[in-house]
This record gives sequence, C-alpha cells and structure tokens, in this order.
Amino acid sequence: MRHSSKRYSFLLVLSLMLVTGMASAQKASWIWYPGDYETWLSNKMQNRRTERGTFIPPFWRIDSPFALMNFHKDFTLPGDEDVHLYVDGTYNVNLDGQLIHGKPDVLHIPAGKHRLSLKVFNQTNVPAIYIEAPHLVSDTSWLVTYEDKEWIDATGKTSDVSATKYQKAGSWDFTDPKLLPSTYHLPVEAQKAAKIDRKGNSIFVDFGKETFGYIKLEGLKGKGNVHFYFGESPVEAADTAHSELADKITVDQQGDYTFDGSRAFRYVNIVCDGPVSIDNVSMLYEYSPVEQRGSFKCSDEEINKIWDVAAYTLHLNTREFFIDGIKRDRWVWSGDAYQSYLMNYYLYFDSPEVTHTLQALRGKDPVTSHINTILDYTFYWFLGIKDYYQYTGDKSFIERNYPSMQSMMDFCLSRRDKEGLVQGLTGDWVFIDWADGLSKQGEVSFEQILFCRSLETMAECARIAGDNTGAEKYAQLASDLKQKIFKYYWNDQKHALVHSRINGQPTDNVTRYANMFSIFFNYLTEAQKQDVKKYVLLNPDVPKITTPYMHFYELESLCAMGEQDYVLKQMKDYWGGMLKLGATTFWEEYNPADTGVQHYAMYGRLYGKSLCHAWGASPIYLLGKYYLGVKPVTPGYATYIIEPKLGGLQWMQGAVPTPHGKVEVYCSTNQIKVSADEGSGTLRFKSKTRPTCKQAKITEKGDNMYELTVLKGTNFTVDYKSM
Amino acid sequence: MRHSSKRYSFLLVLSLMLVTGMASAQKASWIWYPGDYETWLSNKMQNRRTERGTFIPPFWRIDSPFALMNFHKDFTLPGDEDVHLYVDGTYNVNLDGQLIHGKPDVLHIPAGKHRLSLKVFNQTNVPAIYIEAPHLVSDTSWLVTYEDKEWIDATGKTSDVSATKYQKAGSWDFTDPKLLPSTYHLPVEAQKAAKIDRKGNSIFVDFGKETFGYIKLEGLKGKGNVHFYFGESPVEAADTAHSELADKITVDQQGDYTFDGSRAFRYVNIVCDGPVSIDNVSMLYEYSPVEQRGSFKCSDEEINKIWDVAAYTLHLNTREFFIDGIKRDRWVWSGDAYQSYLMNYYLYFDSPEVTHTLQALRGKDPVTSHINTILDYTFYWFLGIKDYYQYTGDKSFIERNYPSMQSMMDFCLSRRDKEGLVQGLTGDWVFIDWADGLSKQGEVSFEQILFCRSLETMAECARIAGDNTGAEKYAQLASDLKQKIFKYYWNDQKHALVHSRINGQPTDNVTRYANMFSIFFNYLTEAQKQDVKKYVLLNPDVPKITTPYMHFYELESLCAMGEQDYVLKQMKDYWGGMLKLGATTFWEEYNPADTGVQHYAMYGRLYGKSLCHAWGASPIYLLGKYYLGVKPVTPGYATYIIEPKLGGLQWMQGAVPTPHGKVEVYCSTNQIKVSADEGSGTLRFKSKTRPTCKQAKITEKGDNMYELTVLKGTNFTVDYKSM
Repeated sequence: MRHSSKRYSFLLVLSLMLVTGMASAQKASWIWYPGDYETWLSNKMQNRRTERGTFIPPFWRIDSPFALMNFHKDFTLPGDEDVHLYVDGTYNVNLDGQLIHGKPDVLHIPAGKHRLSLKVFNQTNVPAIYIEAPHLVSDTSWLVTYEDKEWIDATGKTSDVSATKYQKAGSWDFTDPKLLPSTYHLPVEAQKAAKIDRKGNSIFVDFGKETFGYIKLEGLKGKGNVHFYFGESPVEAADTAHSELADKITVDQQGDYTFDGSRAFRYVNIVCDGPVSIDNVSMLYEYSPVEQRGSFKCSDEEINKIWDVAAYTLHLNTREFFIDGIKRDRWVWSGDAYQSYLMNYYLYFDSPEVTHTLQALRGKDPVTSHINTILDYTFYWFLGIKDYYQYTGDKSFIERNYPSMQSMMDFCLSRRDKEGLVQGLTGDWVFIDWADGLSKQGEVSFEQILFCRSLETMAECARIAGDNTGAEKYAQLASDLKQKIFKYYWNDQKHALVHSRINGQPTDNVTRYANMFSIFFNYLTEAQKQDVKKYVLLNPDVPKITTPYMHFYELESLCAMGEQDYVLKQMKDYWGGMLKLGATTFWEEYNPADTGVQHYAMYGRLYGKSLCHAWGASPIYLLGKYYLGVKPVTPGYATYIIEPKLGGLQWMQGAVPTPHGKVEVYCSTNQIKVSADEGSGTLRFKSKTRPTCKQAKITEKGDNMYELTVLKGTNFTVDYKSM
Repeated sequence: MRHSSKRYSFLLVLSLMLVTGMASAQKASWIWYPGDYETWLSNKMQNRRTERGTFIPPFWRIDSPFALMNFHKDFTLPGDEDVHLYVDGTYNVNLDGQLIHGKPDVLHIPAGKHRLSLKVFNQTNVPAIYIEAPHLVSDTSWLVTYEDKEWIDATGKTSDVSATKYQKAGSWDFTDPKLLPSTYHLPVEAQKAAKIDRKGNSIFVDFGKETFGYIKLEGLKGKGNVHFYFGESPVEAADTAHSELADKITVDQQGDYTFDGSRAFRYVNIVCDGPVSIDNVSMLYEYSPVEQRGSFKCSDEEINKIWDVAAYTLHLNTREFFIDGIKRDRWVWSGDAYQSYLMNYYLYFDSPEVTHTLQALRGKDPVTSHINTILDYTFYWFLGIKDYYQYTGDKSFIERNYPSMQSMMDFCLSRRDKEGLVQGLTGDWVFIDWADGLSKQGEVSFEQILFCRSLETMAECARIAGDNTGAEKYAQLASDLKQKIFKYYWNDQKHALVHSRINGQPTDNVTRYANMFSIFFNYLTEAQKQDVKKYVLLNPDVPKITTPYMHFYELESLCAMGEQDYVLKQMKDYWGGMLKLGATTFWEEYNPADTGVQHYAMYGRLYGKSLCHAWGASPIYLLGKYYLGVKPVTPGYATYIIEPKLGGLQWMQGAVPTPHGKVEVYCSTNQIKVSADEGSGTLRFKSKTRPTCKQAKITEKGDNMYELTVLKGTNFTVDYKSM
C-alpha cells in the first residue's frame, strides 16, 4: 500500500504556528517520540538495497525505536467535545489521572482544563497516536516520555511524576488518521517507456532518462521466469552477467504485473524463460513530493541544461531521506547528505527533509562509533546543523537536539590524541574523498578543519540551547584547535596548509582539501587566501579532484574568492563533459580522461559507479549562492545578501527560496531586477557607471561598489553597467 | 501458535560442552545478539498485563533489540557437507569473503577451513539464525556484531574488520529450525474445573486451586456477550464490579472457544448476555517446563504443606522470566526476581531462567535510571549475579556481562552524594518494603548496605573478567563505604544500625532492614550480631515485617545465627496462617491481624493484593539452605557444606540440586544420611555422643562438633545424638 504525503512548505507551517500563537496548531497529525520514526523508516529504507537479488545492508549500527511510549497533553476545552483517538499499538488512556476502561476510540470530554495521556506499546512499528477534536489535536506540542515513573504505593497513592524527562513529540505531516505512519510510502505515478525493442525472448526498454521506481509488465501472459537486467547505461542492461541490478521473478498468470522492488535504471533488459508474453512495459515512477521552489535560467544553454539535470539528479536522490545514489547504496550518508542540505536551500527549501535526515543519521545514544563509521561524516553532521540554523533560523530544532549533539561531541572529544587532534583510530574510517593515493595516515589537516568547525557549531548551538558554560567550553576548544591547525600545518614555503602530520611531524604533501575548506570557513587571512588560490587551487601540480563531491567545495572556495568566471568554465567542462557523454543525471565520479565503458566502472566492478548521485548536483547550490548570489547573513534570512555575479554570462534569472517565500533575481550586463518576500536584504553589485533605480536609494560604497536595501515586498530594477 | 521448549539442565549442557571441547556443541540452536531475545520477549511478556480489559504497561524504559545483525563463524569441515540455513529476517550469506547470490537455504561447502557470515535485518522480531550441518551448527560459539564496519574502497578492496567488536551469540534451547524464536510460547496442558455452579445466565467455576492460563468454553453455542470475572478468591470472582481481572468477549459461533488472554485465577464467574449456552468450562494451564529437582519432607505435615505450596507458588511465577505475581503485575521486578533466583537454587537449579531474567532486567545502555526505577532493585541485580556465580560457578556469564555491569555501576557511582553515600535522587524510587510509615528520606542505611555488597560483587566480577584495576578500585570503594556505614549508622546505645541519616545527622530510628542484611552479609562482629539479634530481630518494639518479601531476609538472618527453632515456629505461624485461610499459593502480603476480605485488599483496591506472589515462596530457600543445610562454599559447589539443623523437627529429608546433580540429606534426631553427586563437601553436625559412620572417617572439631568429608558418589549414614 502506498499513499501520498502532502508536504507543507516551511512558510505555510510557520504561518499557521504564528496565527495560532504556537499553542495548538489546528491540524492534527500522527505523533511519536522525536527521532524514532526517522530511525524506523530509515532502517526500512536502508535495508531495501539489493544487488542482483542479494540483500546488501548498511555496515554500521542501526538503532531501534522505543517500544513503549507515554504521550501527554494539558489542555483547556471551551465546551464539551468528542475527542477521537487513533493509535498504532496496544494502548491505554488516562484522563485527569483516571484510567479509562478498555481501548476507547472516542472520549466525550467536558469543558475546562484537562490532562490526557496515552501509553502505547508497539514492538513492530513505532508507537504513534493521532488525536482529533475541535480544540485538541495531536501535534508537536504534546509531551512524550519513554519512562513515566508513575509509581503507585501500597495504599494506592501515585508518585510525583515530576522526575520524568519529557520531550516534545515528533511528527511529520501525516494528517490522515486512517493511514498509519507505518504504511507510509512515497507516491508513484505511471510513466511510459521511450523506446521498446523486442528481439527473440527479450525486450530491451529505454525510459529516455534515468528514473526510479517499479517496473510494470502490462498484459503479462504465460508461465515461466522473467529476468530483469537494469542498466543506467545500455551496456549495463545488455550485460546480463554483470549488470549491478538484476532480479528474477517466476510468473504464472494473466494480466498486469508490477515488480515490488524499487530500482534505479534508464534501461531494462527483460528476458523471458518459457512461454511468457508481455504486451507492453511501463513503470511506476516513485518520487518525493517536495516542491521545487528555486529556479535558474541564463544566456548559456549548456548551463541551463546543467542546472536542470542537477535538479533532476537531486530530486531522484531526495527520497524518504536524502540518499547518496538511487542505484547504490540508497543509504543515508552524512557527507553526501550534507551537500544535499545545501542544494536543498536553493531548490526546495524543504526543512523537514533536512531535519528528518539529520535525525536518521544521528540515531540513539550511546555513541559507539562515528556516523556511517566515518570520522569526517560525524563532522559534516554538525556542519549540517549549523547551516540548517543559518538558513532556517529554526531554534527549536537546535534546542531539541542539543543533548544528542553533546553526546556526539563527547565521543569526538574522548577520541582526541595527546595533541588534542583527531586521527583515525581503530574502527574509524577516514574517508575524505575517493582519490587514488590519498593518504589517511596520522593527523590529517582536513579532519582538524572540520573538527574545528564542529566545535564552533557546538558553541553556537550551546548558546541557543541556553548552555552558557558549554558555549564557553566549546568556543575555547575551537579557538585552541584553530591555533594549533595553523601552527602545525601552515607551511610558508608551500603557501598552504599541508595534508597531515605523521608521528608528530608535518608532511610536505599539499592537497586541496584543508585549503579549500579554510577559505569558505574564513579561517585564512586575505594574504593566505591569495596564496592558497595561487599555489593550491589554481596549481595544476596539486592532485586534481575527480569527484563531483569534492568539486563542490573546490568550486565553492573559488566562488567565495570571486572566481565566478573561472568556475563557470569549470562547470561547463566538468558537468558539461558528463552531458556530452549522454548523462541524464550526474555521476558519483567523472574523470574526463576515461573513455567508453571505463566511465561506468568503480569499486572493481564493471558498472559499480552510480550514474545518479546526489553529490553530482552541486551546480544548483553554486549558481544560487554565488551567481544569483543570494545567501542569509543572519539566521533564517533575517538579514541577507544578494550579490549577483554573471561570471561571463550575458544574463541570468532565477528564484532562491527562503523561509517566508523567495528572492527573485534577474541580472544582465546592464540591468538587475530584484523582488523579495523576505525581511531585510542588501543588494550589492559593482558598476562601471553610476547606477540608477526608480524604486530605491542606491548607496555608493567606493571602489565601484553599490548597495541597495531590499525589504519584504521589494520589487525594483537597477540600471547599471557590469564590470 | 504455541510450542514447547525442552529445558536442558545446566548439568547436561555443561557435560555436552566439556565433551565437545567447548568448540562446537553438536546440537544446533537458534542464535541472536546476546540479551536481545530477552529484551524482545520480556517486552512482549510485560506488556500483556491488563486490568478489566485495560492495558497496563510497565512505567520504566524498555529497550529494543538491534534490527541488523552480523553472525559469523570460522570452522573446519572434515569433508564436503550440506549446510542448511534458517533465518528470521532478510539476509545475505558470505562464504570465505564471497557474497553468495540471493537467499540460499542450503550451501554445499567443501572440506577445509572456512568463514561463514550472515547479515540479518529484522525490525519486527529479533534477527536470528539456525545453521545445521554434520560438523557446523549455530551455537553460542558464533560471533555476532551490530556494526561490521566492512568498508570497501573505490577500488573494491575490503577494509580490515579487526576493529569490529564481536560478542558471543546468545541462545536459548530452541532446537527446531522450523519454529522461529518469535513464535515461542510456554507449553499448555488441559485442566478440568473442580466445581461448576450454574445459576441463571451465570456459571461459577472453581479450579480447586490458584492456576494460570486460558479459559476454555466447551460446546459454546449462540450469539451474545460473555463476561469473565476472574478471582483469586471467591468473593473477588463474585464481585463483578471490582474483580481485578474481567474481560468481555462477543461470540456468534458453535463449538469450543479458548480465550486468548492468559489470566491468573482460581475462580471464574462467567456471565452471558443473550442466548448463549456453554456445555462445560475448562482451561489450558500454561506453565514453564522447568524441572523440579529439589525436594523436602519432614515430620511436620504443616511444614510439608508449606513447602509444597511454596514450590507451586514459585512454579506459577516462573514463566518466560521470573515474575512478581501472576495476577498482577506479571512484570520482571529485580527485587522480587532476586528471591526467585535463590529459591531456584533449591528447587530447580535452572540456570537459564536466572540468566534470562538478569539480562531482561538489565536492558541496554545508556543507563538512564535504576532498574525498575528502584534504587534497591539495581543493587539486587548485582547481588543476583554474585549468587549466580556462587551457586553455578559459571564464569562465562560474568565475562560476557561485565561491561554492562560496569556501566550500571558507573551510573550508581555518578549518583553518590558528597559523603559518597546513595540516597533517592529525583527519579529514583526508594522502595525497601511495603510498610506503613517507613521513612525513605535521606541516606537510608539499608541502601548503603546493598550498595556496599554490590561494590564487592563488582570487585569479584572484575577479577573474573580479568580487570585487575577495576577489581582494586571496586574493592577500595566497598571497603571505604563499609567503614562509613559503621561510623555513621552504628549506635551503641541502640545496639544496632539506625535507619538513616537526614541532613548529615543519624536518626535514632531503628528498623530491621540494614541490621538483618548485615548479619548474613557478615558485616558485623560476633558481639554486634548478638546485639542485633536481641535488640532488633527478637525485639517486638521494632516495627514488624508484614511482607513475605522482607520475612525472607529476617528469617534468613535468624537462621544464619542458628535460630532454626524460632524460625520454624515463625514459618508455621506466618505461612501456616495463610494456609489456614485457605491459601493454595502464598501471598504478596499477609497481616495476621487482618480479618475476612481485608486480606484481599491492597493499593487502595478491594482485591488489589496478589495471592500468588513469588516472594511468598521463601520457605523453599530457608528449608534447603538452613535446615537441610546445603550451600556452596566456593563457586559452583566446588566445595560446599552440609550442616543439617532440625530446628525442632523429628526428621527431615530432601534433595538440593547442584550443578552436576544433587545432594540428598536425611536427618533425624539420631541419624544423618547423605549422598552427593558433587565435588568436595563437608558434613558438619553437633552430637551429644560420639557419632559413628561405617563409610567415612569422622573428625572431632571440639565443642561437640563433628565433620565428615563428602565426595562425589558419597553415600553414607551417620549415627549420632542430636543436641
């Protein structure tokens, strides 16, 4: 069974919360212990991976939800009301301290103040409730606890329950009481094949572009085996012995048949054993109902195509959670997801997809290893929270999750070496990037940079959560670490941070990783930045990046230094290179030096590479943030900047979604148009000539720089002359 | 579906392990992550409680099993073998580093050395496997881990997996591959009613004694509602408005009907609404298949009856785990279970029932509250492990569970006050006993005594687990605490430990609790013991014990001081008192001063009291340990003592089970007969005249005391004259 979930934009939900004074949203939804549904659903999703019919689960610890939950709410009814109860699990109901007989599904509650609580046991799915009445609905204002400690003494007296640690309930937007959260599936829609070739007992189907979902055999008739060989490339689908995804079904029927395993493919090669006939092949496309609110168009058709394909790539990898790739692994990887969060802010601005993914990654205490077992991926988890707050300004998520951030950071701090630095200990995977010959030994500078940024994140979140002692502690740790980083790794001869220290000695190996992050983390002086640009980023002797994953950061660091022209060319080369090879989505790895089927191989397997990988979609982020130039300056776009950079384009236009709407920008070499739904922004640009604007006052900042204040409802045109 | 579990005695299992060199028992059984099945099954069991159709779950945190598990085993086959695989969950199979295609249920493996591993995902039940081949079976020698960390790099190279933390698998004795562990139920057997009275539309059934199981309506016909009012007493079953257990079913059928809820009752009052007829009422008695290996008979028929009723009481409360009471709560309570463990050593010597219960109680990390939320109950958990080792000598259980003992103790240590003592903090229940007016305030001496014993347990287990640093640390903590206990609580004027310290000042309140425990923990000097006996135990001005729970320890402390005559009278008074009131099982609480239906009331409810409570069965323990006088001196009965004390009886005889068989004792005023299956024991007794024995040498120890050495296979008779 599948049912669709209507996704409410952050804007709508926030407005609703504001209208109702945050006390009680008028819309009921299924609620549960925060994080538990994410845990359960991500377990289900991540354990769907198969390769040629063989189950391939994650290799890290996955957690389980609490099986017994207590939900409660204090509320006041203006009049008598019928309160409807829907529960996923065995339950009881307590109203005003009195246990109600049996398993009521409706309560008639008189006007006045009340306390309602439900205890729910469910060891199969997640204990969840849905409560609905005119003035009482289940929502995230309900409190939940996994240990109610309601002791009763021998005389029947109930204990003081003030000891119980309550949390605010978790919820998605499941608003249909008849559909249990455990039945949730992404929606599907029928799609036709682009081309079907029949040859003997086989049918070779091309869906025209990379896609994801359930193969459907229309008018299937007969008895025998049907083999599916899926391919992201035609050679993969044709190579029945080596295609990564292959499945066999045994049929004896008449009528349409839909395969129950969701698969990634553009091509499917269907081979029948025995007298089986199939009238037609189509599919059910499975997708996330996120709303695309960002857009980008420009004078360069190749860039437009890159943006569109990137958007499609990200959409395919935006599923129950942000995943790495749709063919493989279909898992939630923190480093991959981190980039999806950032792209999301420029494509959907869908906050729930981010918070769900962050919660699925974190799991439960105790922390016994790094997220996905990878040292760097734990740090990206912290960074993801920092960015989430910066873009959305959502303090409540920080407040709720601060304790689990603390225990995660305690784990990291407990694993520092005697220098106070991190290195890969037994059980840690130091990933960094897929790159030949990349050293993971010793104290790698890149890991310290991420660690330092994570400590800064902790300091910021501690302040938000009201833990001032923690804020000071983390800030001090971050500042000490930053000092050490430059003391240990900065090499004046190399004009760069070196890659690592081994046995207490800095190596003289220079790589791009730590250097590029330290630019957009703003850890470098202006002189150091220029050094790094020259001696690292633009230096062909420093080993090249070959994954879109690290290209993301490399190009970001160049954009952050105003190298939009250079980056545009890089984008056209690299992403354009994939398009020229026929890509309909962007890849896990792309090496322009490879030829033919070399492009498909990875992990020692002929078709091991994923041709639809979330981290391939970074142009969305780069074009939104560094070309349209829109980004928050203070959390939640309370203040923000619009700094368009054409980077060689004749014109561009697009929308960047924000918490309360969007910012639209048009920019050509002689005109800039801006409209905004958001607080207080600054449009900043350079102009050869004195610019004019009828709707607003332009302030001259010197050095050909001009600024305008952009307020909510702004809609203005600036005439200028680009430099 | 229910299926029976054959329970192998510790003896048989141990022999099997020795015969096969511990490497590979020849019998396959279902295996899982250690503790996870206990967690899952105890969740299921503890959430079966209902009261009048309303669900009553535990009020503490319950944990969940890991949903994804990796099982592995290195082994050598002498020849080619077919290996059969049975799995509860989605799985894959890897042989010698190669993933096997699909979901194989049989593997043909050639002779030689191999490594087999299975990864299993199951989010509903517990991931479990059963493997069977002539020379390869799933057993507790398999290794399991919840995070295999088998990384693969971009070239296809697999990571070193030495980082993975493996544990030895957990197992019960589920040896049928076709029966998944998740379908396990206790066995049932049909039982007839003793008496059936029909009156109008109601049928009042008496099963002759307290029982437990599923009510069966034979020859049910018609359509309507059938109400069941269960009663441990006839008044409870007759009181349809207040009976604790009441259920309603709606029927429309012809034929036998078995109610699917297991209930405790002696009486059931069945009332039909509508035209429903029932030919006969019987039940399916549900029981644990533990083997009763201990026995006791003596010259006093009342004591014999007490022993039999106690044995039946314990058997009813020995279920999937040791529970408190069969009517209510049907939960695993650490303090209650602790007494069941001790009784078990004198009735079944069933080690799995003890270890399963200990694991169910402990749950998973992180520790966020005391076991069952009760301070004292955490300490009883440690004490239960100490006794388990003393009786069974099973080091492997200690080794496996030492890490979870450490984290539990870390929790306790982190909650000490500035004096290093424990007191009830927010969220802690200080239980001690059900007794009117008992103070729980401040630093209660009883809690310090249990804490001290727990620290001694940790020191002992640390040594077994090879943690010498820990052993020293815990021993020091215990010795410091013991010193403080006597410094703070011993009152020379009172000749006793006082009850508590409040705001740093000892109270002058004397209660029995700390005093009686310090006797059999051997914390007192001989002079202090005599003081405590006179001024506390035999002092009617010190508040009396009214629960069998604390009577257990009170009588134990008196027995430990040789007061068997006094204790026998107490037993006859107290347990005999319940029998005179018609008890067929022993109660949760018994106050001889109560009359009539007062006996049934508790917790402010007319029939709130449980009339079949495990802690009511202590005579089994007292008679075995202090009258037959059999107890281990060193772990696992390597050495032991037999010190029979008639306590006023003319004769007694019985068997005490031991790891490798039993010790049988007959003792009259002029003859002692002993036979033993166990290592090296000492028979010790006093005699007015010089005793004689044909089979062994008697050593005179002075003061009319004599000793004989008892070896395995011993069977001898001593003629003597009791004093």
